[in-house]
Amino acid sequence: MKRIAFFVLMLAAFSAAAQQRNNVVPSFEGAVEDFKPNITNQRGRQYPMVNSQGAVRAQLRAPQASSVQLDIGGRRYEMVKDENGVWTGTSAPQDVGFHYYQLNVDGASVPDPGTIYFYGAGRWGSGIEIPSADMDFWQVKNVPQGAVEEKYYWSKATESMRHCFVYLPAEYQKNPNKKYPVLYLQHGNAEDENGWSAQGHTGQILDNLIAAGKAVPFIVVMDYGQSQNIHLVGQYAPQQPAQPAPQPQQGRGGARATGPDAFQVVLMTDIIPMVEKEYRVIADAQHRALAGLSMGGMQTRRITVANPTTFAYVGLFSGGTVSVEDVQGAVGYKQTNKLVFMSCGSKENPRVMEAAESLKGIGVNAVGYVSEGTAHEWHTWRRSLYQFAQLLFK
Amino acid sequence: MKRIAFFVLMLAAFSAAAQQRNNVVPSFEGAVEDFKPNITNQRGRQYPMVNSQGAVRAQLRAPQASSVQLDIGGRRYEMVKDENGVWTGTSAPQDVGFHYYQLNVDGASVPDPGTIYFYGAGRWGSGIEIPSADMDFWQVKNVPQGAVEEKYYWSKATESMRHCFVYLPAEYQKNPNKKYPVLYLQHGNAEDENGWSAQGHTGQILDNLIAAGKAVPFIVVMDYGQSQNIHLVGQYAPQQPAQPAPQPQQGRGGARATGPDAFQVVLMTDIIPMVEKEYRVIADAQHRALAGLSMGGMQTRRITVANPTTFAYVGLFSGGTVSVEDVQGAVGYKQTNKLVFMSCGSKENPRVMEAAESLKGIGVNAVGYVSEGTAHEWHTWRRSLYQFAQLLFK
Repeated sequence: MKRIAFFVLMLAAFSAAAQQRNNVVPSFEGAVEDFKPNITNQRGRQYPMVNSQGAVRAQLRAPQASSVQLDIGGRRYEMVKDENGVWTGTSAPQDVGFHYYQLNVDGASVPDPGTIYFYGAGRWGSGIEIPSADMDFWQVKNVPQGAVEEKYYWSKATESMRHCFVYLPAEYQKNPNKKYPVLYLQHGNAEDENGWSAQGHTGQILDNLIAAGKAVPFIVVMDYGQSQNIHLVGQYAPQQPAQPAPQPQQGRGGARATGPDAFQVVLMTDIIPMVEKEYRVIADAQHRALAGLSMGGMQTRRITVANPTTFAYVGLFSGGTVSVEDVQGAVGYKQTNKLVFMSCGSKENPRVMEAAESLKGIGVNAVGYVSEGTAHEWHTWRRSLYQFAQLLFK
Repeated sequence: MKRIAFFVLMLAAFSAAAQQRNNVVPSFEGAVEDFKPNITNQRGRQYPMVNSQGAVRAQLRAPQASSVQLDIGGRRYEMVKDENGVWTGTSAPQDVGFHYYQLNVDGASVPDPGTIYFYGAGRWGSGIEIPSADMDFWQVKNVPQGAVEEKYYWSKATESMRHCFVYLPAEYQKNPNKKYPVLYLQHGNAEDENGWSAQGHTGQILDNLIAAGKAVPFIVVMDYGQSQNIHLVGQYAPQQPAQPAPQPQQGRGGARATGPDAFQVVLMTDIIPMVEKEYRVIADAQHRALAGLSMGGMQTRRITVANPTTFAYVGLFSGGTVSVEDVQGAVGYKQTNKLVFMSCGSKENPRVMEAAESLKGIGVNAVGYVSEGTAHEWHTWRRSLYQFAQLLFK
């Protein structure tokens, strides 16, 4: 029931956001004039800018336009044209961290030509970074560098070539006979396999932690998990096309949602076997972790309950909680598990601490983490990865 | 003189393209109605589309706009609005291959929200693929897959972290004691280190060639070479800021251009030493190649003349030619060299065949290649890599 309530809450939040899209408001007037170029701008571009309050200022040349708006955080801010046909507009302060946004030119929603582009909100589009005081941990530093590989592989379950990103720690190429643990790390709804590397800075977080001796070297696999876009075929196809794929542990709220099923099938059928064949991996549960953000966290909960002896480390970042009933209902879960990590931003509903206490009560090594001052966005998840990574495979 | 003539020709071409930007023409009326979604569209997007003639049809919802244009191939095609506020427009047939383009909404130049984005023409923006009959060679196939790594490294010459992509052949991870030859492969003007992988499909071309036994396995390094954006510091900085960096082989046309100098310094100071430290590489001239497209080809010519015993294999794709004087003026060039490969599209000025004949006359293993029916764009360069790769390290 708690899972259903959580899901309804998420749907309500999305619906509210959709309504606010039509909220057109004037450009924010109270901005402190200390704007600096956004750090995800294209090379040499001054705009968009961000100030010390987290307000965003965008600019676009559109001499013949009658209306240009900055569409961010569920509101559209009216931009104002100068004598050269250049429109400028400023948003109210945004939460620290990373935000998808767009511009609207006479009714056309388009990416801001000032930024580089990210996949999120179901599209490739603009992203902006509101700096946080602690952003140092995900910056590129002069420490031993791992690499993020783009890797294609054949999927039996979909009879197609699939695509993922694989982080290999700096020492991987230097120790040709050493095998490594693996974290499978999933994105959120309407994002894709690019997210954890591009928005999440997984490579930098891990390189920095490993260089500081705070994390052991491990591999991270980031794949595409939007189940409604994963078309299973042959023996892997759902028995009735309109129904979810068979679930070993059906019966709890999350397991009834149709979303994650196809991803679960490709993870178990294709992704894990590919990784254990192509890379030097310690192929047992004690060296295998599954984590995800938002939808990816909900998938993590369901997949680990359905496969209770496959993953010893479990992470849910802004993705609900693992319950006492989950653990007690899944044979071998508690014996296999070394860690259940649950996190969220303090601006979300932080029942992760309470859920961790409940799990500790039955002897599970559960850790709750609340990211101070952050919301349902990437800075919460970068911080979550930073905390989670330090607890893995030790 | 020939080099100068070539350079003037290139400048003239760019200038003509700039003038044509203001060429606003009606939507193309003669299109065959067999349009299909462009293969570089975002997941699930129908538009832009391409027909069998190579005409491009774009669509954008912009209910309040008074003018929307499709800006491709140096022309702006007027799009037409329907009763739902959706604008549609069609270009004249384009050359086969890959083209950067944009939309213009009431004077604002913006990416088309229908496509994924590529770095070229000095910006991240839309790209479209006009299918060619021979495009099979760069498709993702179910063959042993290498991987393209994103790699950061410390640069002494710029005192900053730089960024490149490294293709590792499929067998690299399986043969932990084997060392490999390396091709350093450079992009063109106003492109960056993403180009050869994203637009060029280097990984697929190499995986397919190696799987077919047509190329030996080798590593490919793709770095950023736009010299005016590379800021050398300390002992590596130019003596007089306004002048090019010192050139060992100054005096010939191309060597006087100021562009490539900073890239040459980082290549020799940082990139090659990093690759030979971080990867299992056969670190001698006989197992080292340098190639590039357009500006990258001109850089290749100059760098190999300035460092005549460093690279045994040389490739210029739509990037001018190596002359008899180049080879004769550079001590050790001829003794070191195993191949000079020069290519271009048949719609460019194909003097590569004549240049190859001249080089053969002095005993250089020169190969000219003309890509039939293609222009100064990526399909010419994919085909060039496909040909060049089969001749390397054998």
